[in-house]
Formats: sequence, C-alpha cells, structure tokens
Amino acid sequence: MKPLEYCNGVLKLIDQTLLPGEQKIVELKSYAKVADAIKDMIVRGAPAIGVTAAYGVAIASKAINTDSKDEFFTDLVKVCDIIKSTRPTAVNLFWAVDRVYNKAVSNRDKSIEEIKNLIEEEAHLMEKEDIESNRSIGRFGNELIKENWTILTHCNAGALATCDYGTALGVIRAAHESGKNIRVFADETRPYLQGSRLTAWELMQDNIPVTLICDNMAGHFMKEGLIDCVIVGADRIALNGDTANKIGTYSVAVLAKENNIPFYVAAPTTTIDFSIETGKQIPIEERSPDEITHIKGVRIAPEGVNVKNPAFDVTPNKYISAIITDKGIIYPPYNENIEKYK
Amino acid sequence: MKPLEYCNGVLKLIDQTLLPGEQKIVELKSYAKVADAIKDMIVRGAPAIGVTAAYGVAIASKAINTDSKDEFFTDLVKVCDIIKSTRPTAVNLFWAVDRVYNKAVSNRDKSIEEIKNLIEEEAHLMEKEDIESNRSIGRFGNELIKENWTILTHCNAGALATCDYGTALGVIRAAHESGKNIRVFADETRPYLQGSRLTAWELMQDNIPVTLICDNMAGHFMKEGLIDCVIVGADRIALNGDTANKIGTYSVAVLAKENNIPFYVAAPTTTIDFSIETGKQIPIEERSPDEITHIKGVRIAPEGVNVKNPAFDVTPNKYISAIITDKGIIYPPYNENIEKYK
Repeated sequence: MKPLEYCNGVLKLIDQTLLPGEQKIVELKSYAKVADAIKDMIVRGAPAIGVTAAYGVAIASKAINTDSKDEFFTDLVKVCDIIKSTRPTAVNLFWAVDRVYNKAVSNRDKSIEEIKNLIEEEAHLMEKEDIESNRSIGRFGNELIKENWTILTHCNAGALATCDYGTALGVIRAAHESGKNIRVFADETRPYLQGSRLTAWELMQDNIPVTLICDNMAGHFMKEGLIDCVIVGADRIALNGDTANKIGTYSVAVLAKENNIPFYVAAPTTTIDFSIETGKQIPIEERSPDEITHIKGVRIAPEGVNVKNPAFDVTPNKYISAIITDKGIIYPPYNENIEKYK
Repeated sequence: MKPLEYCNGVLKLIDQTLLPGEQKIVELKSYAKVADAIKDMIVRGAPAIGVTAAYGVAIASKAINTDSKDEFFTDLVKVCDIIKSTRPTAVNLFWAVDRVYNKAVSNRDKSIEEIKNLIEEEAHLMEKEDIESNRSIGRFGNELIKENWTILTHCNAGALATCDYGTALGVIRAAHESGKNIRVFADETRPYLQGSRLTAWELMQDNIPVTLICDNMAGHFMKEGLIDCVIVGADRIALNGDTANKIGTYSVAVLAKENNIPFYVAAPTTTIDFSIETGKQIPIEERSPDEITHIKGVRIAPEGVNVKNPAFDVTPNKYISAIITDKGIIYPPYNENIEKYK
C-alpha cells in the first residue's frame, strides 16, 4: 500500500484521486509535475506530501544543468519555493524541503554531482525514517488501545497518507497485529471522501473490520455508546498542542469530549511546528468550490451557489487527550511537554 | 415552491430526488404510489409527509368500492396502516393519518360518499393549516433573529419540507421579508444532500444570501465566529423537549452549545409527540447503504464496504435554546412548558 516509490529520477505515485475504483500509477519525471501532483491531491497526507516534496527537489536538482555552484543554488532555492507553495497547511512539506535543501547547503564544498546525489539520498532516508516512525507511533499508540474497542477515525491518516503503515491507521494496524479485537468507524470525510475512498479501502485490504459512516453521524454513534476512542492524524501541531487536521476534526474532538471519549492525535514529531505558539498561527487552505458542488464530475448542488471549502480546521489543545508520536506519547499540559520533543 | 398539489383524486408532487437539476412533477392516483413516494423520499420533510399521507388516505378511500360501511372501515384501517408504515420517525405522518381517519370515524353515521368527501376536505384543511402554521412559526421566530445575523441550518426545513414557506426556513424567510439583513449557511446534509440540493436552491430562488458548506465544516465556522444562531426543523419532539431531526442535528447542537450560539428548533405543535416522555422512545429509521456508497448512481465507496445509515438522531433537550412553534416560543424547562401546548 505504499503510495510512492522513487527510482532513478522517476517518482511513481498511486493516483489517490481515482481510488478505490481505479488503481493507476503515475510516473513523474519533473519537479513541476511533482508540484502539480501535490496541489491536485494525487498524493496527500502530511507525511506523504513531505517525502514526495523531497523527491521533487531531488528530481529538480538533477535537471539543473550548470557548472556554476552559485547558479545551482539559485535555481535550487527557486525550485524549493515552488514546491513549498503547493499547499499551505501541512508543515511536513516545508520541513522536508528545508531538510533536503539544508543537506545541500551543508555540503556546498562538494561537487554539484555529489550534492545532487546527497539530496537524493536524503530523500530516500526520509522515506525510510517515515516508515520507521509510523511503526513507532503504532507501538506507542497500541498501549492506549483496549481489547474490543471501536475506534473512530476521520480522513485518511493511513499508509496512503505516509510512506507506509500510517499514523492514526498505524496505531490501528499495530493494535490489530497485536491480536486485539478492534473495529473501526470511518467518517467518509467530505468533500474529498478520503474516509470512504481511502481509509475504508485500506482497512478492508488488511481485513480490519470497518464501518463507513457520514461525517455528521459520528456524534450520534458516540452518544449511543458505540465509539470507545477517536484517533486522527495531523497536518501541523503548535507548541501548545493545538492541531490542524482535515476539516471536521475539530467537530469530532468537541463531540468526543462531550461524550467522555478519549481523542488522540497520531503524528510524527516532524508534524510539530516548533516555531508557532498556538493554532491561530496556522494558515488554513481554501480549496476549489467544485470539490463540494461536484462528485466525480457530477453536479450535486445548484448552479452558481456560493461555497466555502476550508480543507482543514484547528482543534484546540483542550480537546486532545494525548498526542502519539514516534518518540513517545505526549500528554497535557502540552505547553510544557511538547518542547521536550524538539 | 409548493411541493404538493391535490386536485380531484390526483396528487401532484415535485420529485425532490431530482432537484435541483430537474424539476419534474409526478402525478399519483393510487395510495400505493403515494406510500412509495413517501418511502422513496420523492416527498420528504415531516409536515409535507403528513399532508401527503392525508391525501393518500383520501385517494385510497375513493377507491374503496363497497356499499358496506363495515367493509369500508376495514379497508380504510388497512390503508392507513400501510401508509403509516412508510417511515418510522416523523410523528406528523401518524398524526395526519389518524386525523383523517378519526374524521371518518366520527362521521360514521353519514353515507360512505359523504365520508369520502369529508376525508378529502380534512386533508385540504390540513394543507391550509400547515401553511398558516409556518407563517405563524415565522412570525414568532423572527422575534429571535437580530439584524446582520448569519444563521446556520441543517437539512431542509423549507417550503419543500412543508406545504409552503417552511419551518426553519419560514423563520429565515420572515426575517428576510421583515427587512433584516441576514445570511444563511446551509450544511449540505449527507447522505441525501437536502441542504445543497433543496435548502441552498430554495434560498437562492428567494434571493436570500446562502453559503453552502459540508456538514463537517459547521463547527469550524462556529469557532471562527461566523455563525450567530442555528435553526433546524424537527421530525418528532418528546414531552421533555428531546428532538429527533435529520442525522447530524445532534452534532450541530453540541457544537453550538460549545460555542455559546443559540440553537433553535422550529416546528408546528403537530410535531410534538405528547405520548412519549423522552427522545429515547423515538425510533430511528435506518436507510439503504446505497445512499452513502453512491451519489446519482456513481459509486464513491469501496465495493462491499459495511455501512451504517441512520436517517435521524435525537438532540437532548439541554442543547436546545428554544422551540419555535406556531402557537408560540417554548423555552426550557421543557418538561413543564411543552405540556401546555397540547
């Protein structure tokens, strides 16, 4: 279920816009195509976007045809800026591009050819680290999951949102693999339907029992006592624990608190933005109205209707029971405890 | 925008499953077709279902071909039971069928022909009363609406859900007609999309500013301070104020309370079920998984996925700021105040 694979300057992505109906692999050979793939959500999910972007920089660097190191770095900066401009909310994108760029800068004394190879190697390393990180999140998170629990998740924080295994679904996979009898409720996650198209599909492939519901049903099932905990991923976490994630996450968190259900965020420490104090500083991406007015090209809303389509929301720290990271579980008070994970 | 029109044994309905793309009128000449139309949601909305059902009984009674009054009443009871079995949650359906049936029973001494006419007249009267009732709800509700407010609504409690004007949208229409500068946010209301297909469309026809959002965005906009109050309709209200309404209403109510936003229910007193103490006694209809896995015949979820599709949820009384009825506004404590409206 790896959503991306890189080899010799070619990045292969599963086109996630077509899942689960069609399993098509796209092959990208230029950074511009990689940028478009991120923008158009052919690849999505904060950790997967990060590694894709790193490979995008690697592909771009190979295409910079110059003997001048100054020119090489000028072009590299431009490319990095373009890739970073594709989506504004997930911090992993900026972190990943900065990491490969800094690798290049810190090896400026080497030859251009060597620097290009180092960028590529760094991207490879990040892919490997992401998978290890998810396994680690799974191990830590599994400690919180009890036998016979039904877990609600929102959006897709699965293998498809990472380089493999997943963050929120990584915890669910780890619990399942450890022999616990668990079930999952998956919010369909309008407008892009990552829950029905990706999460339900992923879990069905792994034979983990999953029930698909509409987003507006989650509260009802919590009230009816059918949900034991919530686990979601994250696109950016502030120093105080405020967490940006797929639109609808905030509502799920409020409903969980109201029903005394633990609400967990699962994310690698690379999703923590140590430069911002609170979630108020996280920019929220507004996406095309078409995502709401059309499904698979079919119009489902009146012509000319006014639409708002924020892709993310921010869940204030007070609703989050714990943040499960690759380096351990962070509990409140987040103001004190997150800093330690820098 | 009247969703139904009856004349000489023929009930004409706007097929609401096709709106807003297609405005098709279906003509029903048998009670069986009327029952199917309710079941298939060609007509929906508690008050509209009630009056449709009453006309269904009128059409059925005309078709009972007998000189025996005993036989007439035996057949009438059967028909009433069939029509009442179409949908389980909205109490208006049972109320309406019982009302026309009781009209017949209390006139048992009259001729069969006269009884048939009385049933038809009673259905006509109910249609007229429903429109007056909505105007009255609008007048009472308008007192609660302040200048420049943005009102969130869920599902469609509009003209299309009633015989005209609407309940929740009746309040919004009354505020707009009285010259207040108001705006509406409409939840799209998965899975059946009554919000995007019907509410947004209705309001656009009346030039009332409306913004369409996904259900999972309502909480985000409340937190951002963009919503001043919530108004929804109701399918059944218990003696303690617990209210069954379209799935997702409970979540909106919890989010409104969390954000200190008033949450109003607008419904005729015929929606109050004086026979039940709490919302726990309201049966919740489970509808076909296809409503979630397909949109307009297009599959949007994995083949074979397990689905839950409750059509309604119950909002406990503690989340409801007031119930706006045709006879006045009911405030908490509902336990004491609802009984007076019997």
